[in-house]
Amino acid sequence: MRSTMMDAPLQVSRILEHGATVHGSAEVVTWTGAEPRRTTYAEVARTAARLAHALRDECGVTGDERVATFMWNNTEHLVAYFAVPSMGAVLHTLNIRLFPEQLAYIANHAEDRVVLVDGTLIPLLARVIGEMVTVRHVVVVGGGDPAPLLAAAGDRIAVHHWDALLADRPAVYDWPESDERDAAALCYTSGTTGHPKGVAYSHRSIYLHSLQICMPEAFGLDATSRELVIVPMFHAMAWGLPYAAFTSGASLLMPDRFLQAAPIAEMIAAERPTMAAAVPTIWTDLLAHLDTHDVDVSGLREVVVGGSACPPALMHAFGERHGVEVIHAWGMTETSPLGSVARPPAGVTGEDSWRYRYTQGRVPAGVAARIVGPDGEVLPADGTSVGELEVQGPWVTARYLGDETPDGEKFRDGWLRTGDVGTLSADGYITLTDRSKDVIKSGGEWISSVELENALMAHPAVLEACVVGVPDERWHERPLATVVLREGASATPEELREFLAGSVARWQLPERWAFIEAVPKTSVGKFDKKVVRTRYADGALAVHTVTVV
Amino acid sequence: MRSTMMDAPLQVSRILEHGATVHGSAEVVTWTGAEPRRTTYAEVARTAARLAHALRDECGVTGDERVATFMWNNTEHLVAYFAVPSMGAVLHTLNIRLFPEQLAYIANHAEDRVVLVDGTLIPLLARVIGEMVTVRHVVVVGGGDPAPLLAAAGDRIAVHHWDALLADRPAVYDWPESDERDAAALCYTSGTTGHPKGVAYSHRSIYLHSLQICMPEAFGLDATSRELVIVPMFHAMAWGLPYAAFTSGASLLMPDRFLQAAPIAEMIAAERPTMAAAVPTIWTDLLAHLDTHDVDVSGLREVVVGGSACPPALMHAFGERHGVEVIHAWGMTETSPLGSVARPPAGVTGEDSWRYRYTQGRVPAGVAARIVGPDGEVLPADGTSVGELEVQGPWVTARYLGDETPDGEKFRDGWLRTGDVGTLSADGYITLTDRSKDVIKSGGEWISSVELENALMAHPAVLEACVVGVPDERWHERPLATVVLREGASATPEELREFLAGSVARWQLPERWAFIEAVPKTSVGKFDKKVVRTRYADGALAVHTVTVV
Repeated sequence: MRSTMMDAPLQVSRILEHGATVHGSAEVVTWTGAEPRRTTYAEVARTAARLAHALRDECGVTGDERVATFMWNNTEHLVAYFAVPSMGAVLHTLNIRLFPEQLAYIANHAEDRVVLVDGTLIPLLARVIGEMVTVRHVVVVGGGDPAPLLAAAGDRIAVHHWDALLADRPAVYDWPESDERDAAALCYTSGTTGHPKGVAYSHRSIYLHSLQICMPEAFGLDATSRELVIVPMFHAMAWGLPYAAFTSGASLLMPDRFLQAAPIAEMIAAERPTMAAAVPTIWTDLLAHLDTHDVDVSGLREVVVGGSACPPALMHAFGERHGVEVIHAWGMTETSPLGSVARPPAGVTGEDSWRYRYTQGRVPAGVAARIVGPDGEVLPADGTSVGELEVQGPWVTARYLGDETPDGEKFRDGWLRTGDVGTLSADGYITLTDRSKDVIKSGGEWISSVELENALMAHPAVLEACVVGVPDERWHERPLATVVLREGASATPEELREFLAGSVARWQLPERWAFIEAVPKTSVGKFDKKVVRTRYADGALAVHTVTVV
Repeated sequence: MRSTMMDAPLQVSRILEHGATVHGSAEVVTWTGAEPRRTTYAEVARTAARLAHALRDECGVTGDERVATFMWNNTEHLVAYFAVPSMGAVLHTLNIRLFPEQLAYIANHAEDRVVLVDGTLIPLLARVIGEMVTVRHVVVVGGGDPAPLLAAAGDRIAVHHWDALLADRPAVYDWPESDERDAAALCYTSGTTGHPKGVAYSHRSIYLHSLQICMPEAFGLDATSRELVIVPMFHAMAWGLPYAAFTSGASLLMPDRFLQAAPIAEMIAAERPTMAAAVPTIWTDLLAHLDTHDVDVSGLREVVVGGSACPPALMHAFGERHGVEVIHAWGMTETSPLGSVARPPAGVTGEDSWRYRYTQGRVPAGVAARIVGPDGEVLPADGTSVGELEVQGPWVTARYLGDETPDGEKFRDGWLRTGDVGTLSADGYITLTDRSKDVIKSGGEWISSVELENALMAHPAVLEACVVGVPDERWHERPLATVVLREGASATPEELREFLAGSVARWQLPERWAFIEAVPKTSVGKFDKKVVRTRYADGALAVHTVTVV
């Protein structure tokens, strides 16, 4: 039996129209270092119409052509977020922090036709525009000399200025009806190995994700909310917050390029956000600033932390010293990105709530989660079985852009393999401990390298410990523990092994040990396990083997 | 460009699985007059699987056959809400309060194959089961002698008992994948003229509506919420609250047949709901009870009132005397039913908030609203232009069940004509004043009969006033004011007309006046304007005509 419901497609222009009418007076504030710039949702919608006219009539954008942004978080970027998908084109948010060759690769892979660039980012774009061979138009927002762009790309590109380009264009646009499963926006993962991979969000996925983001179990947004969106709009669609804002009527506060602790603190005091979203490093810096400066953050109820696990000390400090609740969330570019949010269960408060708040949290209704073991078997949700987290849902990607069939390394039977390893509890809480590439596959069971490292670093003689899996004839892989001792301290492999036995199952205890001067690190300070494995394979480590009797 | 997102259909079984796993320990409480019955979402899901097996294997339900319910709000009704759509069949919630001929009509129109009935409702069902000619199975929940059913329907039907029917069946069911646009549930309007009309909700509409219901601008539900669902599950899908509960993890409290103020007050004190939903009459009765009994309602933050406009005095009294915020909402069977919710705009609190809270409120993102004038022209959202409210969206019906094309009286260009007349403000607030059939169409403009009545009843000599439109050669229609004077009071039409001129535009002032003994009323106490119009047409009223100079 067919339903009698209207066949109203879920599309970005619907979110835009809703925000522009029902919440037309909601505010958009862009920080400038001095006076903030202010506008309203109604005005953003009018500007979006002007941009759409300009892109169509001056840049020749038709159909589903790609329009890229190379921008900070500001009003004009927000306008592009709505104008480009609403006109039926596809928004491609270029991550300004990618390496030049990666930027050129993704612009060419997506076949970007237009790039909107902040004037302050012209020098960065000029380094790569010469290699972005499909680009024909660059639109410069704000001041800035476009000469370097023309020097690099020659007459392949036409350079426009935002204000002049939009002037005198109609403030309304007859947004077309879209197939809700068509692409609305593109984002590439910044994978550390191989080329970045594209994820194409649909109008449908953005719409559904926006509703979910507004729910109390996620970020709880309504017209009384003021969102400070620090997470870059070039990273996983700024966690969907711009679209959620127009969905709910929450006002939007954006820091533009002023991402240091001092201007962010100033913005919080002046604009009184009720919630803010950023990666942990931003909060670490802000905490140090708040601890040493008198800043009024009394309007701020919650900050959402994602991107990587948040140090518990940071969560406690914000709560205890500044009355701000830090909420842990997990997601990926591949998941739009809302995957899970760590709010405690009903009735659990105070000290008891921390063991839930440290986790990656629970999935919302639109996401299903399961834990899959080394042999592809679905493991019980018992809080102890360790496996790879796999997720599924209408805003989770099924493949990467350009792949005809899903990559088996990344997808399994219609589920996304997240590459994260951990447990799922009976009440739905996800706890992630390792990346799957860092997990040690020993005799059909998985050993968490992170768990071994944390246990080892609790030993008084140990400064740092890095555990990696190394080939083993009998068990396929076994752990190798590399240890940096504290100055003047000493310990034997046998002693450390016995110490570990106090907190880890015996079959997980490493047989192979090496004392090293320092753990090799990546450019962002993480343990570089690839280097450790290579050194071991090359015989460059002095390995002590503990004989197990 | 096609998106890369998963093509995960939005379906009821997805909501069920989410609630049963992530929120498996959320509570379902059914009042019994004595000890409440308690269960969990996980157990509801297991029972839903058992019911689905029973319906398929014992009642022969296949494909999209209709399974009806004739039940109060209780656990078993909730189980049916999930089991029937999840197995691919269509849930038809029979409104036990319809007239017998209406009940038979809708059961036959929907071709119901099975009816689930509460044992206490057997006598009521027995009066109509004989006419429900497609029904083959009746499942009795709880005790009750099924003899009257068999007496009425003979061997056309088999009667089962819920407990025996479900016993020993598997607690899991491999829910099929549905086309999300297929019907999941059916509800008939209880139109006062003509046959009831069917609305078939889709899996998609239920899913989207559930997300929106949970948003803070609507009912703000999460796992800490405890919903007291008084609005019957046989009326507009209990406002979507059962599905929203499983979507968000909110616990569900249900009064079964105990709808009087005393047991509801007892349930509130014992089970501490955080929110409750019902029509105004329930709240009027409860208020009287709370004012005269010592009941702890401190857990109750908000009650949502819909179905008809809520008297302002009731809203104030709950807030001032019992600390409970009454939230006004508007919707129809045709709108799933969430149409709008009256929460004040950001920053508006205290006394200022009332002028927003008295309105029907603002639409959420999934609903678009417009006001259309007498000649079909879309009127400005200026808070003063009066027209018919039309709505549109993915959970608004496009037609009635069985109609090949939408009825032009009820639908226009893809919009639902709500039959409600009022204004839409620039900031999105809907204010409804009349039903369109009660509005007076005078010279291409609309005059609100309700506004004239309210203005007249403010005159000290007037006890009641009923205003209807009567034919007029020049203006098409003009208002006729029928007035009941207070005992001992007197007033002339000229005096009353001048009094009205103080609050109403002159062109709206009635020329025709009649003093009557009493306003004719319908069975539910509303002014029966049809009777007034007929009396006028028949010349049964003594009409004074005021000559306008």
